[in-house]
Amino acid sequence: MKISCVGVGNMGGAVARRLAGEFSVTAYDLSPEAVRRCVAAGARGASELPAAVDGAEVVLTSLPTPELVASTVETLTELVPSSTTIVDISTIDPGTARLVADRCAAAGVDFVACALGKTPAHAERGEIPLFVGGPPEAVERLGRVLTRMGEKTYDFGSVEAATTFKLVSNFIGMANVAVLAEGHALARRAGITPEMFTAVLKDTGAASFQESVRLPWIIEGDWSARFGVDLALKDVRLAVEAAYRWKIPVPVGSASLGQLVAASADGYGDEDVVAIAKLCTPPPPDPAPNNPAPNYRV
Amino acid sequence: MKISCVGVGNMGGAVARRLAGEFSVTAYDLSPEAVRRCVAAGARGASELPAAVDGAEVVLTSLPTPELVASTVETLTELVPSSTTIVDISTIDPGTARLVADRCAAAGVDFVACALGKTPAHAERGEIPLFVGGPPEAVERLGRVLTRMGEKTYDFGSVEAATTFKLVSNFIGMANVAVLAEGHALARRAGITPEMFTAVLKDTGAASFQESVRLPWIIEGDWSARFGVDLALKDVRLAVEAAYRWKIPVPVGSASLGQLVAASADGYGDEDVVAIAKLCTPPPPDPAPNNPAPNYRV
Repeated sequence: MKISCVGVGNMGGAVARRLAGEFSVTAYDLSPEAVRRCVAAGARGASELPAAVDGAEVVLTSLPTPELVASTVETLTELVPSSTTIVDISTIDPGTARLVADRCAAAGVDFVACALGKTPAHAERGEIPLFVGGPPEAVERLGRVLTRMGEKTYDFGSVEAATTFKLVSNFIGMANVAVLAEGHALARRAGITPEMFTAVLKDTGAASFQESVRLPWIIEGDWSARFGVDLALKDVRLAVEAAYRWKIPVPVGSASLGQLVAASADGYGDEDVVAIAKLCTPPPPDPAPNNPAPNYRV
Repeated sequence: MKISCVGVGNMGGAVARRLAGEFSVTAYDLSPEAVRRCVAAGARGASELPAAVDGAEVVLTSLPTPELVASTVETLTELVPSSTTIVDISTIDPGTARLVADRCAAAGVDFVACALGKTPAHAERGEIPLFVGGPPEAVERLGRVLTRMGEKTYDFGSVEAATTFKLVSNFIGMANVAVLAEGHALARRAGITPEMFTAVLKDTGAASFQESVRLPWIIEGDWSARFGVDLALKDVRLAVEAAYRWKIPVPVGSASLGQLVAASADGYGDEDVVAIAKLCTPPPPDPAPNNPAPNYRV
């Protein structure tokens, strides 16, 4: 099967290299370096979009914004025959997914939304969950491609459902991180030791995946990016925007979006999302008079 | 050992009845009915505070507000000899706990803060965690009492640490519930089935104790109280107030406090905290023109 990968950055590149181990893959990106990394893994490189997708049965798009996905897929529908399946593996909002799906349908091309879980490192090894939605026959035809890309495929039926699920899972997870960081700051100020906080919290209704994975990093001040502030910011922003469009009030998720924005503005965009803990560090116990503690906001 | 229980409402009554199975317990409350329920379980009843605490080695206070705990303990220090240990099992803020501990110390009486986890039903069976702080000798002397009351005793060292831990665990847990309800509303609006949402969310960074326990209730619209809105509201309010006093910004926890206040104002105070899901129900798909959907707020 011939697969064309349009956009081979962090996540797209990992998927392209993974696929190149089994299929005939062509990689295309504005960055020649990104293309070279895929060529080194067995893909063919292309320097123009028309050449990149020529003869491809499947075209994967992996692009940084929903706007770029919409415009790129629009261009693709003019380049590819109707036997082609376009699969977007970017993180996009449900409104853009619907728009793009409708345009593809009008052009007679199948479109499948395939949002990816976890990280590029997981994608490189095919250890990611896939959240898929689109025409059942198209999803069916992608079987071997999806099996190679990820370790679990969840078929959500529609492109809205698939894209929303990805956003919502990060929307919930990131708010859990944010309130965990707030609670940790309170605990520290109250003199609760990190050991005690870690051990006992697991035994309460505050236990969570994020508590188990990220609380140790918050405590150690380990900000090295596993899932970075700016990446989380994008997903939570798209979820909050979808909520407003749907007239669903999401005050708690919105507050965590605010924390991600503040963390990014403070220069922590490339650090792990736990860097939001720096926004709620308690002031030092005894600030000098007339010299307010700098390290907090109200 | 003679134990006096001052305040035998939902939680205090459950603890008093549990203790009456092993110790000589006197129950005191403004509600004669609450006292009667303890007498039926083997406690002695008292109708006046001085008589209630006469001869008691340990006095437990279980009262609805920090203000009542402060004034009651103040009165107690004038009634009991310095050999008595006063143990507060209410949910109070760390500032009040410190105030009360200092007053007791000034009166030569030992004071231990012992915040309780879980529910009255668990307390009735001695299946609750205890979050304890106070003078080590006093905590030591309470050994058998604590063992009878709960299944795990966590000694946090100070009264601030013990009371804060209880508040923080609910502060985190309730924000996790709130954002889960928001995420569920988004998922529903996107056409994700409850079965799919439940099954796949467990496999993501959105997994949590609350997701595992409360998501099914949100989906089923089961609002029957396991932990009620007004009880959660009190704990989260005390945590947020402590945060403001300590100048620790907690925007995400504050947003979830706002949701609990809104739920209480809407008449859901006695329902389970999952009732906050009613605040972010998406509007019906096709509202009649000029007749906006009523069931949401922005």
